[in-house]
Amino acid sequence: MQILILGAAGMVGRKLTERLIKEGQLNGQAITRMVLHDVVEPQAPKASFEISTLTSDFSQPGEAEKLVASRPDIIFHLAAIVSGEAEADLEKGYRINLDGTRFLFDAIRHIGDGYCPRLVFTSSIAVFGAPFPEAIGDEFFLTPLTSYGTQKAIGELLLADYTRRGFFDGIGIRLPTICVRPGRPNKAASGFFSSIIREPLSGQEAVLPVPEDVRHAHASPRSAVGFLMHAANIDTAKIGPRRNLTMPSVSVTVAEQIDALRRIAGEKAAARIRREPDPDIMRMVSGWARRFDASRAESLGFQAEKSFDEIIRQHIEDELGGRIVS
Amino acid sequence: MQILILGAAGMVGRKLTERLIKEGQLNGQAITRMVLHDVVEPQAPKASFEISTLTSDFSQPGEAEKLVASRPDIIFHLAAIVSGEAEADLEKGYRINLDGTRFLFDAIRHIGDGYCPRLVFTSSIAVFGAPFPEAIGDEFFLTPLTSYGTQKAIGELLLADYTRRGFFDGIGIRLPTICVRPGRPNKAASGFFSSIIREPLSGQEAVLPVPEDVRHAHASPRSAVGFLMHAANIDTAKIGPRRNLTMPSVSVTVAEQIDALRRIAGEKAAARIRREPDPDIMRMVSGWARRFDASRAESLGFQAEKSFDEIIRQHIEDELGGRIVS
Repeated sequence: MQILILGAAGMVGRKLTERLIKEGQLNGQAITRMVLHDVVEPQAPKASFEISTLTSDFSQPGEAEKLVASRPDIIFHLAAIVSGEAEADLEKGYRINLDGTRFLFDAIRHIGDGYCPRLVFTSSIAVFGAPFPEAIGDEFFLTPLTSYGTQKAIGELLLADYTRRGFFDGIGIRLPTICVRPGRPNKAASGFFSSIIREPLSGQEAVLPVPEDVRHAHASPRSAVGFLMHAANIDTAKIGPRRNLTMPSVSVTVAEQIDALRRIAGEKAAARIRREPDPDIMRMVSGWARRFDASRAESLGFQAEKSFDEIIRQHIEDELGGRIVS
Repeated sequence: MQILILGAAGMVGRKLTERLIKEGQLNGQAITRMVLHDVVEPQAPKASFEISTLTSDFSQPGEAEKLVASRPDIIFHLAAIVSGEAEADLEKGYRINLDGTRFLFDAIRHIGDGYCPRLVFTSSIAVFGAPFPEAIGDEFFLTPLTSYGTQKAIGELLLADYTRRGFFDGIGIRLPTICVRPGRPNKAASGFFSSIIREPLSGQEAVLPVPEDVRHAHASPRSAVGFLMHAANIDTAKIGPRRNLTMPSVSVTVAEQIDALRRIAGEKAAARIRREPDPDIMRMVSGWARRFDASRAESLGFQAEKSFDEIIRQHIEDELGGRIVS
């Protein structure tokens, strides 16, 4: 069982790598080789099987071919320019998120010869844009209001068509906002959802750029990795032709996030959040989804947290060794 | 007022050209110049304004730039590889329908300098795939089951994003099956919907490859041109960010089509239809939409026929000079 991870240096990619090393197998088959790819060199942790790293820009012609030449059995495609950057740099966003994805899909197709890997693609709830119903169902249409969401929606369409044609066995999983993201903020406009929890828990001040009644859907990094593992393992015959699934999530307002922080870490932690409205972020967030009906993914066995308290506790356990600054 | 038509040599392109020449103006402004483009040389009819033709493959790098260099005020993008051919030749379909469309959009974007033409893009009901509700509403999601439908859905997404970014003022119109298509069959899998009417009306035999209970949505070539003209004229501020609209149509079964033919041309005409089931076409058609709720387009002033009888009568009037073989 050979595995390829694109975007392996990112937060989810690193956690997925750790989890795969820990499990040592996927779908009952021992992992024999894993290739970690990113545009910056990924760290290769020690493992009981062969791990190698590859650093390249997969949106350059010919690079995707090198990635799939060894015919990996499972490909996790997590590589992407995030929402804020794809909005700021139109050409870069389309080059990586659209051209890169298409080059990868075509490189798999060109191998031919019966090669048909499982391909797990991380899409995003950014494929949906307002106005929408209070809970967005599985049959709600694609109406992105950002270039990033547009590029992810196009990736979903390509994945479904290439799967239908038999070039690979694809699943697109629409990740909700991953919260609490560890480490430093990235350029995603959704970054504040994590920083208002992460920073106060470690005694730092955090900036809240939107009103507290903003509602959004979250899942922990641990759940994100769980979604990816499940997508790699699942019997795709059960999914049918609609290969892109909205993942389960916890829908809360910012006020409810702060209440959960207060319950777990106390008033002093909650007081470290400074309100500083940012019209650009407010405008982007106003077009985002608030709640999802992920019953299709749930019936296929995908699972997330049940409360935001649980999300905070996972962060404290996984990232802070159980210690918080109260 | 300068106009550019891509796909001008096709059936709808030729009829649109004739209509524009007849009207001599668009949106209250006199037409001063029209460029007709296609991969085969379009015919340039006589007109009271300058008409020129351009023949090229707009999916080749650099060609789209030549098309928009004169800064046309209105661009009709009708160029496409049809469904049957896009399914048979994956690379050609993606090259023309996706790359070509993107090159065109980027060529407009690269002009910059405040240039922001009205862009009317012909999408298709093939962006929808089964299973769906009996009537597909405006918020039903994109689930194409063909590569052609995938490519049109991607075009819609690009059009919405580039419009949102202010590069052009785009409208995508999802054409139902155009019926009765004049002339010889093209490679579209939907061709039989027209031939079972067209051939019998001129004394020829036609082949019906699907059962008579197949239901589908139709509009006449005259309506298709009407949709394009209205899309070029409409105040886009009324449309909002969801720039792709399902056009009105007449939903009938094949049996109802044949009943209408019998009412208008008699039993002898209806008897010229030979049943010859084709599993490939039946499989494709089974994934197609049957009926649409086009209330959004209707409220914006788009109009189609009210009955299939009306569609047949328009064909007899526009194509057969009022004469049929009964």
